[in-house]
Amino acid sequence: MSVTTPKGFRAAGIAARIKANGNPDLALVVNDGPDQAAAGVFTRNKVKAAPVLWSQQVLTTGRLRAVVLNSGGANACTGPQGFQTAHATAEKAAEVLGCGAIEVAVCSTGLIGAQLPRDAVLAGVGTAAGELAATPEAGLAAATAIMTTDTVAKQAAHTDAAGWSVGGLTKGAGMIAPSMATMLSVLTTDAVLDPAALEPALRAAVRVSFDRLDVDGSMSTNDTVLLLASGASGVSADPEAFTAALTAVCKDLAQQMQADAEGVTKRIAVRVSGAASEDDAVTVARTVARDSLVKTAMFGSDANWGRIAAAVGYSDAAVDPGTLDVTINGVLLCTGGVAAGGRTDADLSGKEIVIEIALGLGDGAAEILTTDLSHAYVEENSAYPS
Amino acid sequence: MSVTTPKGFRAAGIAARIKANGNPDLALVVNDGPDQAAAGVFTRNKVKAAPVLWSQQVLTTGRLRAVVLNSGGANACTGPQGFQTAHATAEKAAEVLGCGAIEVAVCSTGLIGAQLPRDAVLAGVGTAAGELAATPEAGLAAATAIMTTDTVAKQAAHTDAAGWSVGGLTKGAGMIAPSMATMLSVLTTDAVLDPAALEPALRAAVRVSFDRLDVDGSMSTNDTVLLLASGASGVSADPEAFTAALTAVCKDLAQQMQADAEGVTKRIAVRVSGAASEDDAVTVARTVARDSLVKTAMFGSDANWGRIAAAVGYSDAAVDPGTLDVTINGVLLCTGGVAAGGRTDADLSGKEIVIEIALGLGDGAAEILTTDLSHAYVEENSAYPS
Repeated sequence: MSVTTPKGFRAAGIAARIKANGNPDLALVVNDGPDQAAAGVFTRNKVKAAPVLWSQQVLTTGRLRAVVLNSGGANACTGPQGFQTAHATAEKAAEVLGCGAIEVAVCSTGLIGAQLPRDAVLAGVGTAAGELAATPEAGLAAATAIMTTDTVAKQAAHTDAAGWSVGGLTKGAGMIAPSMATMLSVLTTDAVLDPAALEPALRAAVRVSFDRLDVDGSMSTNDTVLLLASGASGVSADPEAFTAALTAVCKDLAQQMQADAEGVTKRIAVRVSGAASEDDAVTVARTVARDSLVKTAMFGSDANWGRIAAAVGYSDAAVDPGTLDVTINGVLLCTGGVAAGGRTDADLSGKEIVIEIALGLGDGAAEILTTDLSHAYVEENSAYPS
Repeated sequence: MSVTTPKGFRAAGIAARIKANGNPDLALVVNDGPDQAAAGVFTRNKVKAAPVLWSQQVLTTGRLRAVVLNSGGANACTGPQGFQTAHATAEKAAEVLGCGAIEVAVCSTGLIGAQLPRDAVLAGVGTAAGELAATPEAGLAAATAIMTTDTVAKQAAHTDAAGWSVGGLTKGAGMIAPSMATMLSVLTTDAVLDPAALEPALRAAVRVSFDRLDVDGSMSTNDTVLLLASGASGVSADPEAFTAALTAVCKDLAQQMQADAEGVTKRIAVRVSGAASEDDAVTVARTVARDSLVKTAMFGSDANWGRIAAAVGYSDAAVDPGTLDVTINGVLLCTGGVAAGGRTDADLSGKEIVIEIALGLGDGAAEILTTDLSHAYVEENSAYPS
């Protein structure tokens, strides 16, 4: 159930004193091969953290030997000094692993704008290298070391009957939005794959998993998803079967992020059907998922479909109020853009809410996962800088 | 200081029992001429309330004798029955005022999805007509009758040295967003104006006032701003001077809405300069103003400029992190995309926060007014359906 599930991978997670409280804050994931193919997807934020700039650069080779990840600081808005820290981190890992810095990606998460304590990071890389192991415990330690406001470590894996597997770890609890959450994720596989097939598979998996999670509409400076392939199973994977397995692991991880989102009291799925296109369905679902009035109504267990209809109406998608149906937790509340009665029949007292929006215009469908807007979200994001 | 400040206008506000609690809920504003020129700006939401559909239709004539406004129900998502209620309301006003229904606009605000009690509304129009007066008290009564979650009535006026004046009332406290707030506003003037000049003046004024207020990014189904010109002063107004006065009144009203927004503890001005265009400046300012993580940081009096930089970075505008400066309450916190120090020097303990973002790319500038995201916002929008 971790990045060490596939053969050929070792991991470690340690406390490097990047975080003042002494909690684990540095992880290392190493691909021992025989293959070292890799692909990455990064934030579309124009303000990119130093480790994102570094990792995008090294990923152009399509190869990775290792990934260093740290919590306790995003190394974003840190200028040349911050970029040098990311570079030095990769150099240090290369030194202890006996490879080139160009084979090492770096990921960071935490407060934007502060320099990382470079010495602590570099010393931590050395310590982590000494603790690398291919065990589930080592995978869990890595997943634990990248937690910020996460309350639980997040891992997933899939083992295919054909003899290969996919594993993954992720973090992310706030600033979670399209083009990925404030999230870092490392995915591993021991399937033998054409290196050219890795990036399409990763993009396809991310598009319908991490990209469909939207907690607060905020897009991070640090989002990174990396896929490392070792080929250690010796088994060639069918590209379609591999993409499906990778997608399943990514969806599992995305659901874990939804369940652990900051201040969450309700897990909400916004399902749109009947849109003119899939893009329109995503647009409508995302607009509803982001609407503060919808999110506060859900927190209050109030089946306020009028706020949903209003959000549908201001989305940048084709919408006809005359063919708009809204169903919450199985109860049809609005049909043809008009109240269908039954508002008090919809029971929203539980933790799961499903909002179904039928637009009646075409075949486009999509689902966005989100959460409610609670007192705890406000508390967590106002009382603590992050 | 109200819609009755300009000559030629009478107003009334009464309790028509649309609201169950017996508070005032119906207003009437009448233009006694000699001119009856009018212009309107409406929500761009594709789900439009019945009174919006009605009023857009009657405004095509460019003339209005009266406006009926109600709180206690938005008459949105109410289908043909809702439209008939809006029509019947105009017919009733026409009957008691001795004009045609085509000369009467209707505005509604309140819960989406419920039918208005038509008989109560029609009886209320009759009652209000009997109380019409040109006094400040009558203007205040009208402004009071359209309040929903507003805590104070909102009015403004400007009297020009040339001998004409502009007055206005508004409401709106939540679901406040671009293309106007969940707001209704009636503006009056006794200036003698070319009817063709009214709409451009209104659009110009709204563009830099109501359209630059963004409390929660939610766009209402009911937003309506109407401008009525009586010509009763007998004084021709210079179009530029009139537009400037109208803009000043609209900005005054927008600031009153900002100050009374749901759950507000901080009034925040987001000022962007150095953008590649004015549109880009608006886009960046709006993205920052809507960001939940920025808004919660402001609630916590935390000068978290990193969240601002992240929001700037994911806006749909041209942005170069290398030339990005962020200043909060006069303290430069980020320059060239990197920490400038002084984070603890910025004092955000007061009620006013000014966020200045210099993009260093061009001459585009714009300001968006917003508020923080507080516990009270969550409380108000989760505990009470509206």
